[in-house]
Amino acid sequence: MNRFWSSVVHTLTPYVPGEQPKQTDLVKLNTNENPYPPSPQALAVMAKEAAETLRLYPDPNADRLKHAIADYYGIKSQQVFVGNGSDEVLAHAFLGLLKHELPLLFPDISYSFYPVYCGLYDIAYQTIPLTDQFEIDPDDYDIPNGAIIFPNPNAPTGRLLPLSAVELLLKQHSDSVVVVDEAYIDFGGESAISLVDRYPNLLVIQTLSKSRSLAGLRVGFAVGHAELIEALERVKNSFNSYPLDRFAISGAVAAFEDKAYFEETCRRVMSTRDQLANKLTQMGFQVLPSAANFLFARHPDRDAEELAARLRERSIIVRHFKQARIDQFLRITIGTDEQTQRLIDALELILKQD
Amino acid sequence: MNRFWSSVVHTLTPYVPGEQPKQTDLVKLNTNENPYPPSPQALAVMAKEAAETLRLYPDPNADRLKHAIADYYGIKSQQVFVGNGSDEVLAHAFLGLLKHELPLLFPDISYSFYPVYCGLYDIAYQTIPLTDQFEIDPDDYDIPNGAIIFPNPNAPTGRLLPLSAVELLLKQHSDSVVVVDEAYIDFGGESAISLVDRYPNLLVIQTLSKSRSLAGLRVGFAVGHAELIEALERVKNSFNSYPLDRFAISGAVAAFEDKAYFEETCRRVMSTRDQLANKLTQMGFQVLPSAANFLFARHPDRDAEELAARLRERSIIVRHFKQARIDQFLRITIGTDEQTQRLIDALELILKQD
Repeated sequence: MNRFWSSVVHTLTPYVPGEQPKQTDLVKLNTNENPYPPSPQALAVMAKEAAETLRLYPDPNADRLKHAIADYYGIKSQQVFVGNGSDEVLAHAFLGLLKHELPLLFPDISYSFYPVYCGLYDIAYQTIPLTDQFEIDPDDYDIPNGAIIFPNPNAPTGRLLPLSAVELLLKQHSDSVVVVDEAYIDFGGESAISLVDRYPNLLVIQTLSKSRSLAGLRVGFAVGHAELIEALERVKNSFNSYPLDRFAISGAVAAFEDKAYFEETCRRVMSTRDQLANKLTQMGFQVLPSAANFLFARHPDRDAEELAARLRERSIIVRHFKQARIDQFLRITIGTDEQTQRLIDALELILKQD
Repeated sequence: MNRFWSSVVHTLTPYVPGEQPKQTDLVKLNTNENPYPPSPQALAVMAKEAAETLRLYPDPNADRLKHAIADYYGIKSQQVFVGNGSDEVLAHAFLGLLKHELPLLFPDISYSFYPVYCGLYDIAYQTIPLTDQFEIDPDDYDIPNGAIIFPNPNAPTGRLLPLSAVELLLKQHSDSVVVVDEAYIDFGGESAISLVDRYPNLLVIQTLSKSRSLAGLRVGFAVGHAELIEALERVKNSFNSYPLDRFAISGAVAAFEDKAYFEETCRRVMSTRDQLANKLTQMGFQVLPSAANFLFARHPDRDAEELAARLRERSIIVRHFKQARIDQFLRITIGTDEQTQRLIDALELILKQD
């Protein structure tokens, strides 16, 4: 508390990201990073950006990247917005598109940054409980609202809402912006980007941090009707003209161009995920169906926080949320096959010991 | 205008940055970039960041960079905040420290992003006219206010307010946050960072875009009392956990460590600036005294916009502002000696021709 602070600062409860340990010998399965390196083509172009030209500002509009994304999805570049990670894109969407008289709706179990943005920008919101099976039921959203946002697949559950259900929401709420936060869509879901030409109320947000192995580069983007994108551009140009540096623009373009590498690494992650899900089920865990690069699982006889602590003793980090309804779950990022085997071995030992 | 937009979006008048032409054969003297490349040490460490580790998130707190800046200025790392360019740092400062019941004060001729931030965050403000000599007079700020911000040296005038006058403002407004925006301080001014331990109401903001030749990397920072920094951290952690990518953190650390290169390039820019100021004066221009890496000059007989257009025909870009009081000035970035000679030759031709 400080007399110099603006009043909003006193009320903020900031988001707490997963631990980024400085220790390097850990099996790090806590922040949903990709176990595979970025595209070699992306690494090559980024190395070249470490040059004299860094003295010059980047393109404030990142036109090359907007075109690369538009080409990839078969849309127009005016339907694309880019930002410094999808968290920044989300922040601009909350301020520019999700603040209305009626409350913003999102699931009770969801990305925990959503209520933080609402606090920052004084946005009225209401959470809608997931079903007992941790699913989004579109019918539960049939209440007066200013806008709707949800992750798909949802985080931290990993559960996917089928595209037909997303479309149902878009139709039922044609006067509300519906934001589909697709951070994990490339690991088995079908993107709502295919719907943007038909629904002027749809905004899809994605990131290069997960499926494109570029968490360290900070690039996210949004796709939607050009008028929704215009709102984000206005907010962005009232906040920071140059959100993407030269490395981010070049590396992200190359990542989209190297489609074969992207598809192969996604396939490997999905394959490991499905094997791990089977193995955990055999070990007695309840594992939610996942279309993401992580599993959300609980063991009927073991306290989740205790399990996480025991794994940590063995240099394996997974994520535990001290939150109602999910405090007996662990969120486990899909690592390499080798890391996954280390996790399985450790869990087998822990479950045997007591 | 769109029914899906939040109401604030309809009212925004975004900032318009200087042109970033895609044509590469121009003498680009319009956005105050440094004519010299970044430190070779910084380039070397950034090239190494194009590696497998980009799949991992960066340190959300950029601790290494905070320590490097703290070491450089002889302060504590808790007194340092870092962001994605000083524009992002400024944005967070406007929301977290400059929004109060009483109006924020800043000069009428100043960084034109300030009123844009006020529009974005609904901040009451009042502009204070510079003197006839385009100087900040501290006495003019003796009115009720919630906070004060000004660039020092001021932009686009280049004029420096002596540190003694900055200190006077801090004393006279001990109940207001005073933000000194020192984007250009390294080209001949004395930083107010030396005052942060004595004035809990002082926040100093700097950038690596100008004096450290890293406009393409997007790194800015703020220095002040730990409680002011805490306000910025709260806003940042309610907006984007990871604003600096891995290239930005490493490159910025190395830039601070390579003090000799930094000092040498600043010295060269200042030397060229002083020579150009003399030459322009000989050519009949009125040149404001500059402590920045640009000059602000007008010719008594020539229309400034017309002069800028004539220079553009000769592939030289300078900045002209269509703004009351300064629409007869040109803002000319200091280039290399060779670029400066091309500018002088072109101006001599243009002035002779008519």
